[in-house]
Amino acid sequence: MEIQEITASGLKPQEFIQEKAREIAATVGDGVAINALSGGVDSSAVTMLGHKALGSKLKTYFINNGLMRKDEPEQIVSLFAKFGVKVEIVEAQEKFFQALKGITDPEEKREAITQTFYKDVFGKLVRESGAKYLLQGTILTDVDETVAGIKRQHNVFAQLGIDPQEVFGYKIIEPLVQLRKDGVRRVAEALGLPKSTFNRMPFPGPALCARVIGEVTPEKINTVRIATAVVEEELASSGAFQYMAILHQDRVTGIRDGKRDFGLQIEIRCWDSIDARNAGPTRLAYEQLDKLVKRMVTEVPGVVSVTYNITAKPPSTMEAI
Amino acid sequence: MEIQEITASGLKPQEFIQEKAREIAATVGDGVAINALSGGVDSSAVTMLGHKALGSKLKTYFINNGLMRKDEPEQIVSLFAKFGVKVEIVEAQEKFFQALKGITDPEEKREAITQTFYKDVFGKLVRESGAKYLLQGTILTDVDETVAGIKRQHNVFAQLGIDPQEVFGYKIIEPLVQLRKDGVRRVAEALGLPKSTFNRMPFPGPALCARVIGEVTPEKINTVRIATAVVEEELASSGAFQYMAILHQDRVTGIRDGKRDFGLQIEIRCWDSIDARNAGPTRLAYEQLDKLVKRMVTEVPGVVSVTYNITAKPPSTMEAI
Repeated sequence: MEIQEITASGLKPQEFIQEKAREIAATVGDGVAINALSGGVDSSAVTMLGHKALGSKLKTYFINNGLMRKDEPEQIVSLFAKFGVKVEIVEAQEKFFQALKGITDPEEKREAITQTFYKDVFGKLVRESGAKYLLQGTILTDVDETVAGIKRQHNVFAQLGIDPQEVFGYKIIEPLVQLRKDGVRRVAEALGLPKSTFNRMPFPGPALCARVIGEVTPEKINTVRIATAVVEEELASSGAFQYMAILHQDRVTGIRDGKRDFGLQIEIRCWDSIDARNAGPTRLAYEQLDKLVKRMVTEVPGVVSVTYNITAKPPSTMEAI
Repeated sequence: MEIQEITASGLKPQEFIQEKAREIAATVGDGVAINALSGGVDSSAVTMLGHKALGSKLKTYFINNGLMRKDEPEQIVSLFAKFGVKVEIVEAQEKFFQALKGITDPEEKREAITQTFYKDVFGKLVRESGAKYLLQGTILTDVDETVAGIKRQHNVFAQLGIDPQEVFGYKIIEPLVQLRKDGVRRVAEALGLPKSTFNRMPFPGPALCARVIGEVTPEKINTVRIATAVVEEELASSGAFQYMAILHQDRVTGIRDGKRDFGLQIEIRCWDSIDARNAGPTRLAYEQLDKLVKRMVTEVPGVVSVTYNITAKPPSTMEAI
């Protein structure tokens, strides 16, 4: 089934919200729905839409997979509490790290996270809650890239011919699937979410797992988490579409205290883009890059080398893996 | 034994040349000496010094280890022919690639090259030539970094307590060991070498092997050779101290013809430096970086991502491995 795109310029946010809330309410009926909130603009908009449509019939969870950024769980719970939305944190770090153990292939990493999320952690929650509906923030770009075989998003099933009801035991509702990122931002703003949310830069489904090349371990996630915090602090005022730190598996020679140190390399990417379909590296001033490097090599344990990605998308993608 | 440094400003090139030529002639006496020319400023200066001191009693070889840059062997032979120096090319690619097979550790790669060079290829030449002396272009920075344990140069033995006479069967003469790179350039100029040689940027002993992270194969050397040619063409007029392309082992996601391509990443380094002890990334214009990237992703097979190194030395080193 062809998805009918709604462009940001053609979108009427309030009408869209009313229509989607009606649709969600009609679909769920007397039942209970469930959704996982990551704090990104997509899942935040879906949570607000679901809350508007279903009130307390929507149960919202934040799955702490151990792959999130610094302080994220606490910040998200406190933001949504202001809107009267209760978000329950589910601690599932060990399950995810166990599932990721020994895996180096990016597609297999995504698959391990998908399986752990849907079959194990979320499947259990759905069974216990009695919910038959899952609200999800899939957008049109996710569908395009998955169908094209560029990247396997963790939340696109129907387009790949997989029936989630059959496989996972529940029906998925995707109210944002006709929109691209710019449209979702307008909807999120119209839903009353703060600018820090509706203008928040994209963050991948597999979270910091997508920022570690090679096997994912708690130590590597800790390293890239610190590097991510540095990049996000330093580039917050850059006006860029998205910025990130990537921990490489390759090691490079460095010098520490006059001695050789075969250390870590962090790659920084900072993108100018409208809708993530095409992107180019932001032309950051070298003074700013110097400052970033100085913090990286002093604050992130083991880092001796920092690079800046200078490739456009295509042939690059926004994320490294 | 402490080496007495001669700084570039304290150096009198013509006196230095006369003195070193006398020393070499006195040491070698009626014997025959041998040297390996790589075409870099150090080995070119040593070749000219040796030729001045010994004439036809010096045999000069270019060892083609399969790790050199595009067209290097031919260019070097034709340059020295102009000075009446006959350079013999020794084809040894297969031996080096065989020795490098399966090795990923940078120190072990250097060691494999050292052993193949001195014990196998060069040892054989020395035995056949009857030469008892090897002229070599070691400079003070090589000694410093090897002794400090930062990097294992392939040509520093005495300082590590290794007697090359005992181990390899010949005595090593190192006429440039009191100089740093800036001093060597003045000596090379005074020896009549062209600017393209005396101002030539440094290139590592292990050649393109130092520009491949992980196992070295003929295919990877071919890839980094093309990337190196692109970087050297594009940055020739940059005025930088040294510039290079590094092929990573890590693979990253890219897009080719609308499909996912799990491809190669090239890291570009371009250094501002006086003498290689300290260095900083050259502040190349983004227009220039864009042009470099465009060539990399179209001319170098499999490349989907290019980064620019933005770290200073220290904590980085000039070369990646």
